[in-house]
Amino acid sequence: MHALIVFCHPEPASFNATLKNVALEALAARGHTTEVSDLHADGFDPVEKAEHYAHRKDALVFDAASEQRHASETATLPSDTHREIERLERADLVLLQFPLWWHAQPAMLKGWFDRVFINGGLYTSTMRYDRGYFRGKHAMCSVTTGAPEAAFVGNGRGGDMAVMLWPIQYSLYYMGFSVLPPFIAHGVQSQANFVRLEGRQFDAHLERHQRALSERLERWQQTKPLPFPGWADWDEAGHAKPEMTTGSR
Amino acid sequence: MHALIVFCHPEPASFNATLKNVALEALAARGHTTEVSDLHADGFDPVEKAEHYAHRKDALVFDAASEQRHASETATLPSDTHREIERLERADLVLLQFPLWWHAQPAMLKGWFDRVFINGGLYTSTMRYDRGYFRGKHAMCSVTTGAPEAAFVGNGRGGDMAVMLWPIQYSLYYMGFSVLPPFIAHGVQSQANFVRLEGRQFDAHLERHQRALSERLERWQQTKPLPFPGWADWDEAGHAKPEMTTGSR
Repeated sequence: MHALIVFCHPEPASFNATLKNVALEALAARGHTTEVSDLHADGFDPVEKAEHYAHRKDALVFDAASEQRHASETATLPSDTHREIERLERADLVLLQFPLWWHAQPAMLKGWFDRVFINGGLYTSTMRYDRGYFRGKHAMCSVTTGAPEAAFVGNGRGGDMAVMLWPIQYSLYYMGFSVLPPFIAHGVQSQANFVRLEGRQFDAHLERHQRALSERLERWQQTKPLPFPGWADWDEAGHAKPEMTTGSR
Repeated sequence: MHALIVFCHPEPASFNATLKNVALEALAARGHTTEVSDLHADGFDPVEKAEHYAHRKDALVFDAASEQRHASETATLPSDTHREIERLERADLVLLQFPLWWHAQPAMLKGWFDRVFINGGLYTSTMRYDRGYFRGKHAMCSVTTGAPEAAFVGNGRGGDMAVMLWPIQYSLYYMGFSVLPPFIAHGVQSQANFVRLEGRQFDAHLERHQRALSERLERWQQTKPLPFPGWADWDEAGHAKPEMTTGSR
């Protein structure tokens, strides 16, 4: 098996980087080959815009979906998009490692979705969801949060992690990935306003997260993906059929 | 009243730009002064990273929250962050105009959240939610989607818009804004895979969206904000109290 880690953090000495390294070790220990897409180190440009397309279908008015489709048909994709797609093609498992910023992935990683998952080449109106391009591959989010776990429980102040991660995880599913339950490391903030742990206690807290991620990756192939509805559940208009049984959001 | 429109689309001739212009006219017709933050035209950098901070608190290890706090304390914020905060300070209403890409705002607008809503100056552990910095001001999302409305109804294929917009709207609420219900223009895609409308029929469809947005903005001051839980609903740990009554997500 081959794993791609899409790593998104501006600081190479961050705890997110530590988790990325923990994942690399855990996957190598299982005999997997590994590869990292380090978005900050690569200087990835997260902004989808006309300038990325050297051979425009419409030189006057820029429509992202249309230019993506045209560029994939004419093999003129931006080089960074092309490189990321090749990395995805090679991978059996894609692990996204990122901090939760404003209840979502950082802009850098959001732009990776905007620019890499291209219309035409990687999805069409009929090649989506459980008929998506990357079906057969697995994807998983590994996320750090600043606030302690208590804030995210039930109707807590931090909000519902399943809701926060839905846009990301449903997008991965849209592309055909089987999405594994996320790994979430709460209370990760070095200059903590929120985490009332000091020194060795905080270190032990972070070490528990590292062990937990390692253990999750040891058994990723035995882990059941998140349930999402599929084509069998929708009528022509995209409505859920009354008898829908496959899953839930 | 003064309104700020945060406009995020790479194409000045897009339907998003049309809606931005419709909003400007509708607000001016109410006697409001208006201002636009055009993220693409301004070349806003959505990536939060060390390079934005000329006077680092910690020159070795970059921690975004810590550097934001330090820069706001020492009045050394990045100039674009400073400009956006000044625009927000002036506004009574903030309208975010953007297309839904991958079940969320484009990376460009996500980065506006990451870089403008700064730790320390604009939020602290006690200055958040209904005690947030911008309390008293209103914010509203105006969003276009590619798929037709049917896909978003109930348990439809497109997903639940309330879930998709939750990370954005809860972030606005976190900053203290009263968040007005979103305006959503479905089925906006010029090269439609999904919208089975041609020529004049499609134009009439878009014109209906323009009228609807104009009408929404005519009565924004009479519109009830979305309900979110507040400090009175949480215990010390950030858990919802059993007797919580204020609202729901």
